[in-house]
Amino acid sequence: MSTQNSDSPLSGHVILKRLQRLARHTDVPGTMTRLSLSPAHRAAADEVLDWFRAAAMIAEIDPLGSVTGRTASDSNDARTLIIGSHIDTVPDGGIYDGVLGVATGVAVVEALVRNGKRLPFHLELLAFSDEEGVRFPSSFSSSRAVAGSFDEKLLREKDRHGITREEALKAFGCDPSQWASVRRNPESLLGYLEVHIEQGPVLEAENQPLGIVSAIVGLSLGTVTVTGKAGHAGTTPMKHRHDALAAAAEMVLQIERIACDRDDVMATVGALEVVSGAGNVIPGRVTFSYDVRSSQDQTRVKAIALIMGRCREIAQERGVAIDIDMRSAMPASQSDPALMDALSTAIRKQGGTARKLLSGAGHDAMIFRTICPQAMLFVRSKDGLSHHPDEFSSTDDIGAGAQALYDAVLVLAENMGA
Amino acid sequence: MSTQNSDSPLSGHVILKRLQRLARHTDVPGTMTRLSLSPAHRAAADEVLDWFRAAAMIAEIDPLGSVTGRTASDSNDARTLIIGSHIDTVPDGGIYDGVLGVATGVAVVEALVRNGKRLPFHLELLAFSDEEGVRFPSSFSSSRAVAGSFDEKLLREKDRHGITREEALKAFGCDPSQWASVRRNPESLLGYLEVHIEQGPVLEAENQPLGIVSAIVGLSLGTVTVTGKAGHAGTTPMKHRHDALAAAAEMVLQIERIACDRDDVMATVGALEVVSGAGNVIPGRVTFSYDVRSSQDQTRVKAIALIMGRCREIAQERGVAIDIDMRSAMPASQSDPALMDALSTAIRKQGGTARKLLSGAGHDAMIFRTICPQAMLFVRSKDGLSHHPDEFSSTDDIGAGAQALYDAVLVLAENMGA
Repeated sequence: MSTQNSDSPLSGHVILKRLQRLARHTDVPGTMTRLSLSPAHRAAADEVLDWFRAAAMIAEIDPLGSVTGRTASDSNDARTLIIGSHIDTVPDGGIYDGVLGVATGVAVVEALVRNGKRLPFHLELLAFSDEEGVRFPSSFSSSRAVAGSFDEKLLREKDRHGITREEALKAFGCDPSQWASVRRNPESLLGYLEVHIEQGPVLEAENQPLGIVSAIVGLSLGTVTVTGKAGHAGTTPMKHRHDALAAAAEMVLQIERIACDRDDVMATVGALEVVSGAGNVIPGRVTFSYDVRSSQDQTRVKAIALIMGRCREIAQERGVAIDIDMRSAMPASQSDPALMDALSTAIRKQGGTARKLLSGAGHDAMIFRTICPQAMLFVRSKDGLSHHPDEFSSTDDIGAGAQALYDAVLVLAENMGA
Repeated sequence: MSTQNSDSPLSGHVILKRLQRLARHTDVPGTMTRLSLSPAHRAAADEVLDWFRAAAMIAEIDPLGSVTGRTASDSNDARTLIIGSHIDTVPDGGIYDGVLGVATGVAVVEALVRNGKRLPFHLELLAFSDEEGVRFPSSFSSSRAVAGSFDEKLLREKDRHGITREEALKAFGCDPSQWASVRRNPESLLGYLEVHIEQGPVLEAENQPLGIVSAIVGLSLGTVTVTGKAGHAGTTPMKHRHDALAAAAEMVLQIERIACDRDDVMATVGALEVVSGAGNVIPGRVTFSYDVRSSQDQTRVKAIALIMGRCREIAQERGVAIDIDMRSAMPASQSDPALMDALSTAIRKQGGTARKLLSGAGHDAMIFRTICPQAMLFVRSKDGLSHHPDEFSSTDDIGAGAQALYDAVLVLAENMGA
């Protein structure tokens, strides 16, 4: 489907070289580990700064550590289209997650320059510094600052070595006291676009290189604690038991069943601990996590209510206590129809299918949902893998993604009468 | 039901004082922690040595650290009745578990002396040094030595500080090279009796102070490893999942169901670990323990086969791999009818009910099953608790137990025509 010359900035090979170059900057040699605001991250940010400047952009590193690049429109009252993604990684992750969106953005700007295209809007590239949320407790701090939802107390969050985000930003070379200056005026924004690997198996299963994200799912997270009665495995008859693990096992299966029985609900118990567990002791206490996602907030809220109701019933039936800590919830983020249309037109121009799909993972794009239209383009991931050394997207698919983003930008320009 | 004078050696108050005195010897002040062969254990052994000698017994500490006391019969060709139990404890345990059997044995010998009773058999008290199996990997080493099933390699077992059993025995003041001398000739043994707290809720539920152990259950232990496919909790549709925890949860409930549906089977999953578990990751690997007990070996073997068959079916249905490590099995130990009869006669003499029950926990008594008749007497435990600071048996119940053991010894003597 990709039809570019191999020396086009939009070529998958050219973009892959960028991913490989950036992958040299790692905290742990032999792995792709670039935690937010680490020395490797700083080296990577400097390289991205070079890319942006080489593409004739005015570029800098902002007070939150993001690399920003800007090409101004000729039009005086132009608004800004942001193309964003992130360059931090999880420990022992892959070279595509995040970086692909930044390298694709650079490719689009270079192609616009090379092809002498002028736009009726400013174009801004953002390489966010903190998407993965691995180093500090919260994530998305860098896009939150741009979108105006940053809270000063995030500066006092500590990593596991006791270093605050504020200290890490200073060590990175930033002036975090200027965080408020990063905020964009919503009225100045035309929209936000992001290219990212799918991180799931849908496009591969349907043999599609690209997909348009119709929504980023909303998310409810929490912890359930089940307290039964510990006892000796040999001396407590079955009928006298209040086994916290057996109760939790029933809850885990109910959570799975409720998600399987519904469209558009995913539910996962990813962590479970038997407190003071031992082979010859009936479990007295078990804690487990829950993670429930849906593209529709109402659907998610209903599923959570049903799950909690069933868990309470199971606890009552088994004579165990239950404590539910509903830790956090993030609403779903619906993509903008006009931006999706521009991406659809661009994909169809390549002869492709404008497959709409959900994003089950969070992305910086969702942080923009409250201030401007946003949409995302997904590139097929081999085996649906991400956050893993074997993460892979083919150069053909990467090239198709870059071409689609380039064409979508031109569609938006045409729609504005440029 | 207890009818002794409060100054009788068989008085529950007198015996409780002994338990309290021995409880002073603890590795961790403020708790009852007397690990096998610790300095506190040595102090306790010295005190028990004094008890034995004060009861006119020939006493010593054997090469495995057990305190042995002996009163010889007048009869030349007499065999020996052993009354045994242990004086090591679990960390933060109670003052009754183990020690009650030793203190009750001393009480019986003292009462025999005071009442001028002569027996047609030798009487030996044994205060074993290693029943709990907490410090070293294996347990029952001290009774195994007496019963002839000790293996020299047990001397090389290490505790978590790297100290071998051999080194610990030397530090205790023993000569472990003499382990083989501890073995008794089976033909010289009349039988083995042990008094122990029930460690379970049966006697309390039925309002009985005493129970006769008809069998110590057999036990199969092992570990099941379930390997599915890890994945992102947000991007992997429910139908694409191979969730190791959901599969394990189904297995846990099947194990519980199989035990609940059968008489005389107890099954417990006491430990379960989600390997690299995290809230937003579909579990890729889970390990869990199983512990299956029955008084009938055939019943246990059938239950294990059924459990493993169902676990394999669940694994197949869910497309996950399963690996079952059947770590160890211990056959059930049936009590000797004649010894049970003597205990029954003794209990009925008090006006009590000779309630037969199973022991779900292991005891030194079962180590003797292959070399001589054995039986056990259980004393009611409050709330069925053991291995816990709140472990408790009333002085009335303790006195009833001592009186029953005393009378049972006399019944055995009478049956031999003494």
